[in-house]
Amino acid sequence: MNSNDPSSEFESISNNHHLSSLPSSSITEMQGIKKVLTTQSINPNILKTSYAVRGKVVIRANQIEHELKTNPSAFAFQDIVYCNIGNPQQLKQKPLTFHRNVLSLLTASHWLEDSSKKELLSQMVNRDVLERAERILSNIDSKSTGAYTHSQGYEFVREDVAAFIEQRDGLKKGTIHSDRIFLTDGASPGVQLCLKTLIRNDQDGIMIPIPQYPLYSATIDLCGGSQVPYYLEEESGWGLTMPELERAYEEATKKGQNVRALVIINPGNPTGQVLERSHMEQVIQFCLKKGVVLLADEVYQENNYTNGKKPFYSFNKIAYEMGVEKQLEMISFHSVSKGFTGECGRRGGYFQLGEAVDPAVKEELYKISSVNLCPNADGQIMVDLMVRPPAPGEASYEEYIKERDAILNSLKRRAEKLVKMLNSLEGVSCQPVEGAMYAFPQITLPEKAIQKAKELGMAPDLMYVLELLEQTGICVVPGSGFQQKPGTHHFRTTILPSEEQIEGVVDRMAKFHAKFMNQYK
Amino acid sequence: MNSNDPSSEFESISNNHHLSSLPSSSITEMQGIKKVLTTQSINPNILKTSYAVRGKVVIRANQIEHELKTNPSAFAFQDIVYCNIGNPQQLKQKPLTFHRNVLSLLTASHWLEDSSKKELLSQMVNRDVLERAERILSNIDSKSTGAYTHSQGYEFVREDVAAFIEQRDGLKKGTIHSDRIFLTDGASPGVQLCLKTLIRNDQDGIMIPIPQYPLYSATIDLCGGSQVPYYLEEESGWGLTMPELERAYEEATKKGQNVRALVIINPGNPTGQVLERSHMEQVIQFCLKKGVVLLADEVYQENNYTNGKKPFYSFNKIAYEMGVEKQLEMISFHSVSKGFTGECGRRGGYFQLGEAVDPAVKEELYKISSVNLCPNADGQIMVDLMVRPPAPGEASYEEYIKERDAILNSLKRRAEKLVKMLNSLEGVSCQPVEGAMYAFPQITLPEKAIQKAKELGMAPDLMYVLELLEQTGICVVPGSGFQQKPGTHHFRTTILPSEEQIEGVVDRMAKFHAKFMNQYK
Repeated sequence: MNSNDPSSEFESISNNHHLSSLPSSSITEMQGIKKVLTTQSINPNILKTSYAVRGKVVIRANQIEHELKTNPSAFAFQDIVYCNIGNPQQLKQKPLTFHRNVLSLLTASHWLEDSSKKELLSQMVNRDVLERAERILSNIDSKSTGAYTHSQGYEFVREDVAAFIEQRDGLKKGTIHSDRIFLTDGASPGVQLCLKTLIRNDQDGIMIPIPQYPLYSATIDLCGGSQVPYYLEEESGWGLTMPELERAYEEATKKGQNVRALVIINPGNPTGQVLERSHMEQVIQFCLKKGVVLLADEVYQENNYTNGKKPFYSFNKIAYEMGVEKQLEMISFHSVSKGFTGECGRRGGYFQLGEAVDPAVKEELYKISSVNLCPNADGQIMVDLMVRPPAPGEASYEEYIKERDAILNSLKRRAEKLVKMLNSLEGVSCQPVEGAMYAFPQITLPEKAIQKAKELGMAPDLMYVLELLEQTGICVVPGSGFQQKPGTHHFRTTILPSEEQIEGVVDRMAKFHAKFMNQYK
Repeated sequence: MNSNDPSSEFESISNNHHLSSLPSSSITEMQGIKKVLTTQSINPNILKTSYAVRGKVVIRANQIEHELKTNPSAFAFQDIVYCNIGNPQQLKQKPLTFHRNVLSLLTASHWLEDSSKKELLSQMVNRDVLERAERILSNIDSKSTGAYTHSQGYEFVREDVAAFIEQRDGLKKGTIHSDRIFLTDGASPGVQLCLKTLIRNDQDGIMIPIPQYPLYSATIDLCGGSQVPYYLEEESGWGLTMPELERAYEEATKKGQNVRALVIINPGNPTGQVLERSHMEQVIQFCLKKGVVLLADEVYQENNYTNGKKPFYSFNKIAYEMGVEKQLEMISFHSVSKGFTGECGRRGGYFQLGEAVDPAVKEELYKISSVNLCPNADGQIMVDLMVRPPAPGEASYEEYIKERDAILNSLKRRAEKLVKMLNSLEGVSCQPVEGAMYAFPQITLPEKAIQKAKELGMAPDLMYVLELLEQTGICVVPGSGFQQKPGTHHFRTTILPSEEQIEGVVDRMAKFHAKFMNQYK
């Protein structure tokens, strides 16, 4: 919980008990037996951690969903639209056909050893699906995705990731080494491992953007470190400014904190901005000057809706072009959950250690990864398919390109539609969604609404969002869950409802908003 | 690292640097830039963590494997036999056909929506495979395993797990609630989450068996807690004795530690013993009397080779039969990686919170689980298939039973063969393998060998195991990696090499051992 933002304390996922104010009923002396697992006696870092994306609002949405199953007319809507989380396939985005077909054949790899089954399969999938499955199997010693892999993940996948990075960033072949790639169960466990490695005690500070994706605040709290918030500038489309980075750093240092790392999310979550190249260069210089590690969250790198006006650049590319790759301690993160792959349920991802990261620390990261044995094999293979999709000339290439473009073009249309609608509402302003999967509008709430929220003991935007849920079935996350400038209110909604759904969502949001503003006028 | 066992310090997975003895070369001031990520400056709990199962010996085995690829005659053997880890499918155990077929159809669920493809599928798989895939899909709102699930895992899987526990333990339907089940990416992350919740600081002690599976020691170190070792009695087949539990508890308490939990691994890893029911009752009474949480690692519950002489009982069952389920704070762990499922690469598992665990703490566990969003969906489905296999009368039932029995009977034969051979060697004694997947023989090493190891600065059993690897290609783990009584030496080997392989493994081990004993006579 960020002490700079008192409203965030209302956004705990559950009973975020303060140690001093526990109801005596929940506790300890029961039939003479002293309990260990009570909210008074477990690790206090667990208690203080907040995670809003699956917090109070979502728990209520789940309850409503259950109620609707037994009583479909209990609410003014038939179902919940989950706009709280970037979960494309929950909102009907289709998986990529090639990727799923290959993964399916690897799961039932005994089919490939049986000529009659293989013959039937050749009627079901493109030729290159079979070839790809066989290529992957030839790279797996055990010939089975049911065996533990190397703790950093399959070597062939890490080699494909390295080649992908080289090609994406215009680097010479052989620049990126596969032993600097760690495959992970989604990007989140990678972020957690790196923060755990960086944080020694509460004097260790990690710079995070405000607003931020709460994975960062939650993990910092869980590791017992300190959040060092820097504010993005909403008026300039959630821009990053160097004076603000300097201010945050200086303030933390003055308080005696060791600033250990700087988190940059690009494209931004929840804010949707794409970083300018010149700003990225300044960020790198800042990290070098201050001696802080750059943690580059680049999971939305494929989600760019600027028509080439603001292309995505990786920090890795910029570091090489500035010639500082051997000085800049950088770790960058990617995932199969976002982009147009959208395979959240697979839990696949990777992180890349920059050249400047000490090999001895890499060994420590390997050791800690090995305590979990390995990331799941299917997620690893999905990473491989993401970084090595069908190539031009292969049988599935056209289908792949068609599916990819359909998803990305549709996301762009939906983003534009949503932002336009939001900006048409009284007291709402929404910055353009240049990338990622979210809009993060500011809502100017009537004084009466703020008073009411105060009486209810909740953050005003949490109250707004809960009423939106109860009246429309649309589930979004209050801005307080991401932290925000004191006195401002926001919510985050994904742009993911399907094209058929989004009109309805836009309509229900607008009607609710008008009613809400009227009610508290 | 257990301070009671000085030999274990040699078994770090990598450079387990002591902070005071770092080579100045690995560090900090490089071109004037102060680095953050160095072994002098990262979280010291990371440095002190050891994890031998994928440690020094395995890293050397990987190197040899690479060397053999370019120069097949570089060693006296053609390939490495990985007996260091319970990884059945790496050693050619076949996956269960029904399970893989269902999972494959769920991955390519678009096939099920296409009548011509469904027709082809019906020629490839049994009818109940299609039915099961459709049943599972009907339980997934998004109709896709590519969406994030509930942070505790799919509700229908948790319901099936609850029903499985009720049936296994002879409990009335409705006794176990699905909201007390947490699905996890294998058992390990569940254990880590629970230990993280229990441990507040280095005064918090966790009782662990010696020898133990190093997941426990590693996680305790990583969380900054204290290991409280209790020794299993090798002479009585690695038996658990109450006086030893009392001794360990009292000693820790006298040192000012708060003993928070007791870890029991049943069947034992690395020791292979199955607990007697009467001992389990005493353990439960111990936990109730002392007020410590029981962490029951029951991942090998299906691996029992005693022909019904010592059946497996879950601690959950015993707690209910003793009528203490509302008093005993218990968490038990299970996995798809072991048993006859052997799907390590899926990373599927679950933990069950006993009724006595405070609901407020359950909410905290949910919150922390949600920071990782969800366990991987395929692993969850593998859990479902494990707890709800084909039923009598279903088309795949006979095939399933045949595959299950073939695997378990073969494991039993291999365990017996290995133990017999080990006991025939000079200076080696091996307790019977009643369960799990490992033999843990004691080796009485010649004084000269111990001297040599001392000169090399390594634990004697590490030296033995490294020589075994170099000369035979067989990769096992030294006893020091699991901790052992000071002055004794062991190694752990899996019983998993296939029936064709195991003769050769047994033969190579025996020849090596004779040579080793002769060399250091």
